[in-house]
Amino acid sequence: MHRPKFLSAAFFLLTISAPAFAQTASIERYDSLARQIVKEALGSNKAYEMLRDLCTSTGHRLSGSPGAAMAVQWSRNKMEEYGFDNVRLEPVTVPHWVRGPVEEGFILHPSGKREKVSITALGGSIATPKSGVTAEVVEVKSFQDLHALGDKAKGKIIFFNRPMDRSLAFTFAAYGGAVDQRSAGAIEAAKAGAVAALVRSMTTRLDDKPHTGGMGYVDSIRKVPAAAVSTIGAERLSKLLAEGKPVRLYLKLSAHTLPDVESANVVGELRGTEKPEEVVVIGGHLDSWDKGQGAHDDASGCVQAIEALRLLKTLGLKPKRTIRAVMFMNEENGLRGGTAYAEKERPGEKHIAAIESDMGGFTPHGFGIGDSTAHAKLVRWAPVFSFFAADRIQLGGGGADISPLAHKGVPPMSLLVDTHRYFDFHHSDNDTYEAVNERELALGAAAMAIFSYIIAEEGL
Amino acid sequence: MHRPKFLSAAFFLLTISAPAFAQTASIERYDSLARQIVKEALGSNKAYEMLRDLCTSTGHRLSGSPGAAMAVQWSRNKMEEYGFDNVRLEPVTVPHWVRGPVEEGFILHPSGKREKVSITALGGSIATPKSGVTAEVVEVKSFQDLHALGDKAKGKIIFFNRPMDRSLAFTFAAYGGAVDQRSAGAIEAAKAGAVAALVRSMTTRLDDKPHTGGMGYVDSIRKVPAAAVSTIGAERLSKLLAEGKPVRLYLKLSAHTLPDVESANVVGELRGTEKPEEVVVIGGHLDSWDKGQGAHDDASGCVQAIEALRLLKTLGLKPKRTIRAVMFMNEENGLRGGTAYAEKERPGEKHIAAIESDMGGFTPHGFGIGDSTAHAKLVRWAPVFSFFAADRIQLGGGGADISPLAHKGVPPMSLLVDTHRYFDFHHSDNDTYEAVNERELALGAAAMAIFSYIIAEEGL
Repeated sequence: MHRPKFLSAAFFLLTISAPAFAQTASIERYDSLARQIVKEALGSNKAYEMLRDLCTSTGHRLSGSPGAAMAVQWSRNKMEEYGFDNVRLEPVTVPHWVRGPVEEGFILHPSGKREKVSITALGGSIATPKSGVTAEVVEVKSFQDLHALGDKAKGKIIFFNRPMDRSLAFTFAAYGGAVDQRSAGAIEAAKAGAVAALVRSMTTRLDDKPHTGGMGYVDSIRKVPAAAVSTIGAERLSKLLAEGKPVRLYLKLSAHTLPDVESANVVGELRGTEKPEEVVVIGGHLDSWDKGQGAHDDASGCVQAIEALRLLKTLGLKPKRTIRAVMFMNEENGLRGGTAYAEKERPGEKHIAAIESDMGGFTPHGFGIGDSTAHAKLVRWAPVFSFFAADRIQLGGGGADISPLAHKGVPPMSLLVDTHRYFDFHHSDNDTYEAVNERELALGAAAMAIFSYIIAEEGL
Repeated sequence: MHRPKFLSAAFFLLTISAPAFAQTASIERYDSLARQIVKEALGSNKAYEMLRDLCTSTGHRLSGSPGAAMAVQWSRNKMEEYGFDNVRLEPVTVPHWVRGPVEEGFILHPSGKREKVSITALGGSIATPKSGVTAEVVEVKSFQDLHALGDKAKGKIIFFNRPMDRSLAFTFAAYGGAVDQRSAGAIEAAKAGAVAALVRSMTTRLDDKPHTGGMGYVDSIRKVPAAAVSTIGAERLSKLLAEGKPVRLYLKLSAHTLPDVESANVVGELRGTEKPEEVVVIGGHLDSWDKGQGAHDDASGCVQAIEALRLLKTLGLKPKRTIRAVMFMNEENGLRGGTAYAEKERPGEKHIAAIESDMGGFTPHGFGIGDSTAHAKLVRWAPVFSFFAADRIQLGGGGADISPLAHKGVPPMSLLVDTHRYFDFHHSDNDTYEAVNERELALGAAAMAIFSYIIAEEGL
């Protein structure tokens, strides 16, 4: 209720209206259900069991990979096992980029010594020639720096070394302030006449694991290979460059793109008892990068969506409107699943909201709502989430997979979580199920169950 | 401001008073300072540097140990290095319990096979006889269970196996619901005629690390040795017992208590510019158990207190009242430091508040205030903490070390944090500096700096 301290209780009672009384009753009802849901989520620990199983039984889940195909079956089987309604695959054709067998990075010292640096191809990169690329490294912190180099960039490996700003309180803002180097570095490097792009990993932590991630080319610009370098590797290169002598680097990548592959979004639901045609989507993306196990990104979101339905079903809660769990395919390098889901004809159906969990399996803080009308209606439910400190219901939110739905007018929502550790793991070998805490994961699933149930009951 | 949604802006402006305008101005001022403090805390990463140094340079810091003595010097040196005012040691005589060289636990199978179980002496336990204790194990879930055993407890090892209730949203409540087994298990076991107490480790995680912690004896009751068993060990024992056959256990502990040792609380401050005699204490406890590195419990609280002063000093903030960092000695097994600090004569001085950080170096959520008058005055500052989601200013809080101050009327406050992972590490070998996230630790230090500065400026 967020009753302010400067209003007396008597004043509050005088101003409260009949709808407000009804709302108080609803809040009490949902608060009681929410406590049962949280208790079951924490007590059963099913989300973490699923996470461990998914992360260890399929291998990585990069779009088009055997692991992704296995994960599709895993998800369908899991939802059938729990007895969800209308469990099905919805076909999606996905790109199939592969890293290939070779990734090598060496500093070539004048002495002849080769010093290894930890690099990995960015997702979508072309290979280097089989003999690799050997060139002098030029460090820049921005595209402006690069443009200012003029001819000095020609024939070089451009080393984009602007760190994520660790002093920002919100890590996603720090990511947003650095990720242009990864997404467009190869394009800008090629425009400047360079032979390759090397990008400092998107993490605030100093470690020796390179963090991959999506990058792009444009048709009009020559393609050059692009790799991430670990932050320790980046610091090493920067230190050598600061000594003022030329630094030569050898890079070899075998990445390439294969023909598209047939894959699927995986869908299951609790069918609404009164208005089944009105649908609340909850989900995450089933694909991952091919580093680590994609546990936080985004096996967590997928198992939370399944767990949310399981929690409701286990507690005998039958929503008036349909709640649908969707494991989207190909968020990382194409968004084909999110696009296909939104484009599919669904006669008679109306999506009333979509909630994505794709910020890691961390302690939930609340929800971000990317539609001001929906936010204004939903913020009243914050008190239901306050007993487990997940009551921040903020304006602004959504998710990549549900953005095509949002473009069609469906209010998008994100599960907001504590993001301080996210980029320690993101897109790297660090992102394993052991990096997820079982309680934090379970509470996120509970939060999704609670809010999707309230929306399915109350409408929007 | 927590302005409720059902009040229009116009209404709000009509009701706002002159003091409220002044408060808005103060909130804006402190919000601006808070952002600088958070930026410096995250950007410099000094808290984590200190944590790593303290955790790796002294060994464990159990009261009376060489590591504790080194940590006292470390803290003094660090505060002198940063140029704090009146850096000093305040003597404290502490107990000196040692684990000794031997800890062994074996299930003795009828076949003659010895199966190791991971056990560790509880803090304060006596040793077993040199030949160990060999006895049949009886499992109980509560003292009532134990009392119901009657003569069947005689000569047995009582295995207290009531788990922390993992379904509770607040882990400290789950701890509170189980820890009587550890603190009083040996007393109750002895009263029932048993020869030893074995207690399931206080954690919701299944792992093979026993978690130690304080336990007590009373003079009138025979002392029996007491140990913690890892949760995996507890599950194993329980499974064997469920098969209905007698389970015999061998326990050997070499723990014992040595003469008291001279130690110290370590104190440093930023002297107030206008009312230096009014003091805001911030602190944690410097001692730890002798498992792991005591990183979350409570090196984190100590380095956060030092870092809080460093942050204020670095930003040139000179508080009107004194802010004093105290590293308390002997929280874990005696509270001698907290007691000595409160008992010491400090002519002319008045403590106006005390803030302890002793819930782990996790993401701060806000503050708990164990004094309703102080809470009513301080809750207004919540908006200053909202940009980094640390704005829960709750009634109820404090800390063990500052409880003697609280008994003298000083409002006690705790830094509230995300506690979901705390008992994964608590009092075990898992509690190392790697288990602390640098951003989460830094934000806690920033929160303490901000609130102690506001109180030192505004009074209470």
